[in-house]
Amino acid sequence: MSGNIFGEIFKVATFGESHGAGLGCIIDGCPAGISVDEKFLQHEMERRKPGAKSAAVTARKEDDLAEILSGVFEGKTTGTPIAILIRNSNQHSSDYENIKNKFRPGHADFTYYKKYGIRDYRGGGRSSGRETCARVAAGAFAKMFLKSLGIQIFAYTKEAAGIKSGKVDFSEIEQNAMRAADKDAAALMQKKVEEFKQKKNSCGGIVECVVKGLAAGFGEPVFDKLDAVLSHAVLSIGAIKGIEFGSGFGCADSNGLENNDFMGSGFSFETNNAGGILGGISRGDDIIFRVAVKPVPSIYLSQETVDVNGNECDILIEGRHDVCLCPRIVPVVEAMTAITLADMVLRNRSSRV
Amino acid sequence: MSGNIFGEIFKVATFGESHGAGLGCIIDGCPAGISVDEKFLQHEMERRKPGAKSAAVTARKEDDLAEILSGVFEGKTTGTPIAILIRNSNQHSSDYENIKNKFRPGHADFTYYKKYGIRDYRGGGRSSGRETCARVAAGAFAKMFLKSLGIQIFAYTKEAAGIKSGKVDFSEIEQNAMRAADKDAAALMQKKVEEFKQKKNSCGGIVECVVKGLAAGFGEPVFDKLDAVLSHAVLSIGAIKGIEFGSGFGCADSNGLENNDFMGSGFSFETNNAGGILGGISRGDDIIFRVAVKPVPSIYLSQETVDVNGNECDILIEGRHDVCLCPRIVPVVEAMTAITLADMVLRNRSSRV
Amino acid sequence: MSGNIFGEIFKVATFGESHGAGLGCIIDGCPAGISVDEKFLQHEMERRKPGAKSAAVTARKEDDLAEILSGVFEGKTTGTPIAILIRNSNQHSSDYENIKNKFRPGHADFTYYKKYGIRDYRGGGRSSGRETCARVAAGAFAKMFLKSLGIQIFAYTKEAAGIKSGKVDFSEIEQNAMRAADKDAAALMQKKVEEFKQKKNSCGGIVECVVKGLAAGFGEPVFDKLDAVLSHAVLSIGAIKGIEFGSGFGCADSNGLENNDFMGSGFSFETNNAGGILGGISRGDDIIFRVAVKPVPSIYLSQETVDVNGNECDILIEGRHDVCLCPRIVPVVEAMTAITLADMVLRNRSSRV
Amino acid sequence: MSGNIFGEIFKVATFGESHGAGLGCIIDGCPAGISVDEKFLQHEMERRKPGAKSAAVTARKEDDLAEILSGVFEGKTTGTPIAILIRNSNQHSSDYENIKNKFRPGHADFTYYKKYGIRDYRGGGRSSGRETCARVAAGAFAKMFLKSLGIQIFAYTKEAAGIKSGKVDFSEIEQNAMRAADKDAAALMQKKVEEFKQKKNSCGGIVECVVKGLAAGFGEPVFDKLDAVLSHAVLSIGAIKGIEFGSGFGCADSNGLENNDFMGSGFSFETNNAGGILGGISRGDDIIFRVAVKPVPSIYLSQETVDVNGNECDILIEGRHDVCLCPRIVPVVEAMTAITLADMVLRNRSSRV
Repeated sequence: MSGNIFGEIFKVATFGESHGAGLGCIIDGCPAGISVDEKFLQHEMERRKPGAKSAAVTARKEDDLAEILSGVFEGKTTGTPIAILIRNSNQHSSDYENIKNKFRPGHADFTYYKKYGIRDYRGGGRSSGRETCARVAAGAFAKMFLKSLGIQIFAYTKEAAGIKSGKVDFSEIEQNAMRAADKDAAALMQKKVEEFKQKKNSCGGIVECVVKGLAAGFGEPVFDKLDAVLSHAVLSIGAIKGIEFGSGFGCADSNGLENNDFMGSGFSFETNNAGGILGGISRGDDIIFRVAVKPVPSIYLSQETVDVNGNECDILIEGRHDVCLCPRIVPVVEAMTAITLADMVLRNRSSRV
Repeated sequence: MSGNIFGEIFKVATFGESHGAGLGCIIDGCPAGISVDEKFLQHEMERRKPGAKSAAVTARKEDDLAEILSGVFEGKTTGTPIAILIRNSNQHSSDYENIKNKFRPGHADFTYYKKYGIRDYRGGGRSSGRETCARVAAGAFAKMFLKSLGIQIFAYTKEAAGIKSGKVDFSEIEQNAMRAADKDAAALMQKKVEEFKQKKNSCGGIVECVVKGLAAGFGEPVFDKLDAVLSHAVLSIGAIKGIEFGSGFGCADSNGLENNDFMGSGFSFETNNAGGILGGISRGDDIIFRVAVKPVPSIYLSQETVDVNGNECDILIEGRHDVCLCPRIVPVVEAMTAITLADMVLRNRSSRV
Repeated sequence: MSGNIFGEIFKVATFGESHGAGLGCIIDGCPAGISVDEKFLQHEMERRKPGAKSAAVTARKEDDLAEILSGVFEGKTTGTPIAILIRNSNQHSSDYENIKNKFRPGHADFTYYKKYGIRDYRGGGRSSGRETCARVAAGAFAKMFLKSLGIQIFAYTKEAAGIKSGKVDFSEIEQNAMRAADKDAAALMQKKVEEFKQKKNSCGGIVECVVKGLAAGFGEPVFDKLDAVLSHAVLSIGAIKGIEFGSGFGCADSNGLENNDFMGSGFSFETNNAGGILGGISRGDDIIFRVAVKPVPSIYLSQETVDVNGNECDILIEGRHDVCLCPRIVPVVEAMTAITLADMVLRNRSSRV
Repeated sequence: MSGNIFGEIFKVATFGESHGAGLGCIIDGCPAGISVDEKFLQHEMERRKPGAKSAAVTARKEDDLAEILSGVFEGKTTGTPIAILIRNSNQHSSDYENIKNKFRPGHADFTYYKKYGIRDYRGGGRSSGRETCARVAAGAFAKMFLKSLGIQIFAYTKEAAGIKSGKVDFSEIEQNAMRAADKDAAALMQKKVEEFKQKKNSCGGIVECVVKGLAAGFGEPVFDKLDAVLSHAVLSIGAIKGIEFGSGFGCADSNGLENNDFMGSGFSFETNNAGGILGGISRGDDIIFRVAVKPVPSIYLSQETVDVNGNECDILIEGRHDVCLCPRIVPVVEAMTAITLADMVLRNRSSRV
């Protein structure tokens, strides 16, 4: 039973492999009457696209043109399924011929093989990061819907290659190749990433996400709490190994008096250790969470592994790969957050008679 | 649209409020033919039950007798829905009369009120930690199923009140009131917790969970990756604010060469930075994750808040509450993990023709 | 993977066997703020209850008291799960001892045994018509919700024991034991049913259902068309073997000019061959459908069958059984229709931005 | 909340409008390892395709080439989502200009407009029968899976234009334009259909479907009974207004002794009034059901209707339309049956420990 459909009302089904004909999605449940901004859709695709001018990202070139196949008429959503297709173009499948029978360390080659008994070894097939372009396309529609409600999402690289950001200035995010919200930190990150690239190695980081404009009341206890579903959505992105809301793991060393956020007049909260969520429901201030991004497993150094027969061997990976995933995961984190919020906004429409 | 049903095949629907008639669940999709161990079911209820001999936990006394209403015949599951009822008995609703119009800091009072326009203020109603007893009952059946497959789950307090555990000895877990896997650390934790209790304050901690005996191949990419669904399941437990797998947030400061787990002959992994999951699918070694547990929001110190009219006021909470949630969250984390794994095991039955 | 949960937003999960501890349901997704009429709930239970003064129905006596366990506070729904429990009381399990190893003709004994490898033979266990009392309890809440929207549901016996109804007078339905909407036909049906009872045989019939007050726009194409989901809901009732909307099977002999319902000013329809549904969406006039009810399979005549070993044998059924299911299926058809409409009303809340 | 995804494990999501860029589907949950027969896929598309040499069907020419975009590698399914795209080619949108503001009798124009507030009037948009080509593409994969289990599905025109079939000879079905299983009846149907065409009118019919080779045990009580889900699947096809299993509505006039199917040695059933299903679970013999197909609403005679402002007006429909839908609905009924059975086969894998 595959799990390629996400959401309860705003449902997103994705498909596609790294080196197949193409990737895409069907959004089933997008409300009718949303003005569709195709430029924005393509802009979001560009943000995720490889080949940006940065040491951090792969040189693979893809047009990543998102073709809307259905669900839009005369510039508006019609309430019928929105299908989007992104054709693959710049595949170098030959890069993978020599490793088709080996399991790349840190990749899903082994687990897909064990689960399905067959795997598309070309670029990791379905397990490739390229799969996320379908999420970004769907996320663009979710953002169009949320925008009409005044809800905005800002994700950015909080830490990379060991460099931590200080200040948070949203206007900086798209101004630097690391997508950091701190200009100075971005420069240092960029430098460190370049060093890892020279060493044929890769590095990890932390991405933070802030949601602004979400009113109180969104989230569906007890199992579909807002933080629970956001965790599901974001941890479903390959390479993300952890998530924390508000004070997160820091609350382990805290105490009740410190960690409780007191309320003031007008139902305002004086602090935000909770990350904007109480009992799994948004409380009206910012939603804040951070995710841990693992180092890119594809490095250009020889590594130990085994082949499909279980024999030990060395592996040297070719192809084009990112050094640090943070900059390109930023739009994907935003997309999954947008899809989750779009769904939660619609689910909440049934909370009262 | 409420979210009180969890799972795709092994589906668990729960109900119940802290001070209502009772709580319970329906398990729809539990395979037929499982031998039902009612003693084990009740034993699991006891583990979550308040009133254990520990400074950490509330003195509220509940019998928490789990009555099986359906789905079991002559000692075996029949494949029909298993309904379980736990009657409430030891309610002190009067404890809440004086705060029925105030919002307790760190609790869901405000968000439930905003979402539903009505709330059962008695003990937090549905948002009470007491809700988790239904999860533990369902988890007991999931464990019975997993046991037949040789899968075991061990959760324990890794850190509490600022005290970190060193060694991990599963045999110690049920031997100390903190449910730590480290005897000496447990004693220190216990002491610290006692201090917080004296100060009428509370403290947080970290719970770690290890799954043993899970074969390779479980998890449903791309959205229902094993780590994504476990995150959903575990973050749906109130008071848990973060989760990380394997090296978790540590991988942010790591690099590809270090963080990749190399494979040796026999498809064995030499390290486990991944937490036993690659591409969202189990790889056959231990699943390891940690969760952040926030300090109990109910403390016996006067706190600032507002009433339902938005007027500022002070609040002094009565009733009986835990000082540190870790020991009692341990069986709940195990339950949600068991429910998730039971579901994933069944979902995987459709992965091949 | 069991299928004991129905609905997408207004979700109903049921449990219980004929001779177990009890039956009941959880309604997850019932909006908050609905005034709960417990008298009405019990009244609906009474309508389905056996033992009514009629030759048509079994003499089994059940109190069928519906206890609300959760989800209601101070007379209103709170938006949390509503759990309802109906204890079994008047079981005569001994009636089934002598047939525990035989498969009753027309019953699910054989298929449950083949599917699950185990079956609760007492009164058919989960496959008993008694299962429907949980549906009626859930349906009562759906009706309370629909009532607030001015939507009413009327089901009645259209035909029974070969006797067809003429006129349709809703006020007659609860005035006769057959629940026919035609007083005179009811008397004839009653007489015919009595004859079947004397012959130790049983008979079938047709139940018609009319929904009034449903506005245009409900139903979710392409798969969850209103008629498709109603068919799913109603065909899930044991003993129902067919359904038709509007002119139904009659349209097979009709032509486009005759069968099309023309519209007049004010978007009114001049005829209703469509049963009030176009393209799977309600059009604002009455929803009308009919269902085929098979003769009660439990008859008091000796029948041929086989035992669990496949050996031929005769079977003589004891216990207490209806002669014609129509009168007692009427409230169940209403319940499933109400549950479906409550769900569709909520689903439609997401159709527009 | 749209309803364009069908199935619990073998999930089919469809998209596309009659005059948009194209139509298609994603199959999420198709097991890995199925040999993919692309010729068979295209053959199924051809069977549904308009323009076949018959008076019954529209002359609209479409290539209906089904392009597999993902989920297949080296001739086998990989367990990842299978996406299929069928481009639209032969659209005559201009045919609809003159009726863009009028509601066609018997069509969903009015209800879509009421539900979504916007509609793609070109050829009915999403409500067009053309939508079913995506179902047929998905059904082809379901059939490939079922074939490996020895399960076959045969649908055929049982009655059309008032002409009833006598014998049932599966080998005749594809030999005549009516897809009847009775050669002589087919010729008479063809003649009658031609007459309706001359009269610029249309006609209805009945399609029967037989499933062979399905073992006992499939179906998921209590709500997802095999007959209930088949009804959902088949009634979701536009123009189908009723369904009956086995003796169907005939059982209303029958009695228990006659209607019960007795079992003989070897668990064989002597008759099949039940349509091969007991308690919602297949019993191992043929599944048999019939569906009512309404007359094509698009006729070439002037009809009364109203415009979007509610003003009365006449409408004369242009475009190319079938006279009798039966022949082209046959492959669609088979497809929905195959999708349902594929799902039920997979769901049943979780019925036992």
